[in-house]
Amino acid sequence: MSITLTNKIEITKATTSKINSVDFDNLSFGAVFTDHLFECDFKNGAWQTPVIKPYAPFSLDPSAKVFHYGQAIFEGMKAYKDEDDAIWLFRPDENFKRFNSSATRMAMPEVPEEIFIGGLNELLKIDAKWVQKGNGSSMYIRPFMIATGAGVVANPSDEYKFMIILSPAQAYYAGEVKVVIAEHYSRAANGGIGAAKAAGNYAGQFYPTTLANKDGFQQIIWTDDATHTKLEEAGTMNVFFRINDTLLTAPTSERILDGITRKSLLAMAEKEGIKTEVRSVLASELVEAAKNDSLKEIFGAGTAAVISPIKGFSYKDEYYEMTKPADSYAELLKEKLTSLQNKLSEDTFGWTVKVE
Amino acid sequence: MSITLTNKIEITKATTSKINSVDFDNLSFGAVFTDHLFECDFKNGAWQTPVIKPYAPFSLDPSAKVFHYGQAIFEGMKAYKDEDDAIWLFRPDENFKRFNSSATRMAMPEVPEEIFIGGLNELLKIDAKWVQKGNGSSMYIRPFMIATGAGVVANPSDEYKFMIILSPAQAYYAGEVKVVIAEHYSRAANGGIGAAKAAGNYAGQFYPTTLANKDGFQQIIWTDDATHTKLEEAGTMNVFFRINDTLLTAPTSERILDGITRKSLLAMAEKEGIKTEVRSVLASELVEAAKNDSLKEIFGAGTAAVISPIKGFSYKDEYYEMTKPADSYAELLKEKLTSLQNKLSEDTFGWTVKVE
Ligand SMILES: Cc1ncc(COP(=O)(O)O)c(C=O)c1O
Ligand SMILES: Cc1ncc(COP(=O)(O)O)c(C=O)c1O
Repeated sequence: MSITLTNKIEITKATTSKINSVDFDNLSFGAVFTDHLFECDFKNGAWQTPVIKPYAPFSLDPSAKVFHYGQAIFEGMKAYKDEDDAIWLFRPDENFKRFNSSATRMAMPEVPEEIFIGGLNELLKIDAKWVQKGNGSSMYIRPFMIATGAGVVANPSDEYKFMIILSPAQAYYAGEVKVVIAEHYSRAANGGIGAAKAAGNYAGQFYPTTLANKDGFQQIIWTDDATHTKLEEAGTMNVFFRINDTLLTAPTSERILDGITRKSLLAMAEKEGIKTEVRSVLASELVEAAKNDSLKEIFGAGTAAVISPIKGFSYKDEYYEMTKPADSYAELLKEKLTSLQNKLSEDTFGWTVKVE
Repeated sequence: MSITLTNKIEITKATTSKINSVDFDNLSFGAVFTDHLFECDFKNGAWQTPVIKPYAPFSLDPSAKVFHYGQAIFEGMKAYKDEDDAIWLFRPDENFKRFNSSATRMAMPEVPEEIFIGGLNELLKIDAKWVQKGNGSSMYIRPFMIATGAGVVANPSDEYKFMIILSPAQAYYAGEVKVVIAEHYSRAANGGIGAAKAAGNYAGQFYPTTLANKDGFQQIIWTDDATHTKLEEAGTMNVFFRINDTLLTAPTSERILDGITRKSLLAMAEKEGIKTEVRSVLASELVEAAKNDSLKEIFGAGTAAVISPIKGFSYKDEYYEMTKPADSYAELLKEKLTSLQNKLSEDTFGWTVKVE
């Protein structure tokens, strides 16, 4: 990777490492963090000196705007270590671009590439020993920006903090996922912030998801809020439907996050000769396909789980289940994508970028 | 007020007061805070010992859920000092109830009355000298709750912090406000979190409001996101329209905050013999009324500004302006409400509650 900030980052190394206290075979997702973090503050209209320092709590004023108005965005990405101990990122340019689109929508300053990409690069080098190899291990990367300016008046902050924290992750198997199609609650409005990775989009899903959990469903497939008929996406995943041998997924819109896994899978499926269609999929169509057995698979796609197969769905109080086909697209695509990400197969798309 | 927590609150007094450094004649809204704050943490499934302590920054883990998922809610209320130096709250039970409805929608624990109301009462007594009297002065009160649990996984936190901070406020005159009616962006989805005072609802408005500001409009009147035809509310205010001698305002819904000023004004207008109608008001209807001069007034209503008169509005690139009528409802109602709140007139509604 060409962009580096080495000379400009102020680096304070941790005096001891926590790494020996970590059980890498029993990691719960997003719970353990590496020794260091990257931080850069925005004030007086400019990004200040970036720093890498020991991972630690930090202080904010009780009136900081992030607490009151939810002015906060994030990204989720992963790094992988290959057999030669080189570390690779997967399409980091896409996360960088999406982060800045989210920033614009949330009236926050854009983060320059040398801070986002350059800072991440240096941080990964400093905590390189934390990136495990093999067995679907990866380093989950969480860049985020929060409004730190003080004052309980509802307008954009003039101070922000951009941070990157790293959390080692194992291969993620969510078990047999059952979902419910949203008939009342929704995730995003037309003209709202659904396409941004804005903090506020997520907490709004917690309560309806809790209700679904109580009924034995792990996730909700969100629908458009006006008619609740179009299938959009799940908690932190885009969704794919296989009807006969065609793979369907909703077009991105103001309401839907433009997932990087989603677009990578579409490209990969095409290369594998799988027919794909990007168009609105209706709940009624899914029910019909489930009834006449043309619905073969449903799966979620996102950075954390890569692909999460969905076993069945509930709609209008009826539950429909599929039998996993022998030629599962979910399995094929997950295998293809993870081996590309882990540098076990050739990256013909040019999606992987070396940290150096 | 009957609920007090005096014996249970751990109180640490500030060693010096900042009060002499504050220019009470030139306060900018929400920028200055009193000497103390109230705080109560939720962990292990229970509310811990409440504390009152000096107002100061506090520390959180970089992975705290409030930063990543916007799990945060707040309230906005005011206290007033009467001629006898007694301090009064305005309908605090309504804020308390709304806070807990917001908590439920955001999958956060409810705050018990003795903590919310009891804590506020004690805090106001300790910082009583900060509550100024006369001239429309008041103490703006900001109770809020944030998810403090660590971990970058999108599910509800298991730890929370509830806080109350106080900010002295002056009579608030926003100048001559011009608004634009939203035709593309929106604030809330059907089945979303618009009716909750959730942090995430506010940052989403910043960018569209910035665009409106550039065109010379101070606020946006939000419309329903599906059709952009129904007039809903403004930034942090509900909206009223006077057509001929009838006062109109939208019904509350999942998309609209159930404002306490709104419902107080409706009751007050009725008492003054003003005809009110709670029903959907269409943008087209407003344009029609503006064209035939039956549109007499528009105003926003909310705790911060009480009533904010709106001079004109823009819709589909046309700008419409009203001439302030001699018998302005906005002026009459503002005068009636503020004198009730300031204990300058009799509180026939029983809305004011003494801090003692
Ligand atoms: C709402 C939402 N949808 C979809 C996704 C999937 O996006 P990506 O594949 O870029 O991780 C995410 C992010 O994880 C998300 O937060
Ligand atoms: C979105 C929104 N609408 C309306 C209002 C007005 O509510 P209240 O009169 O209770 O202050 C507020 C709060 O200030 C608000 O945040």
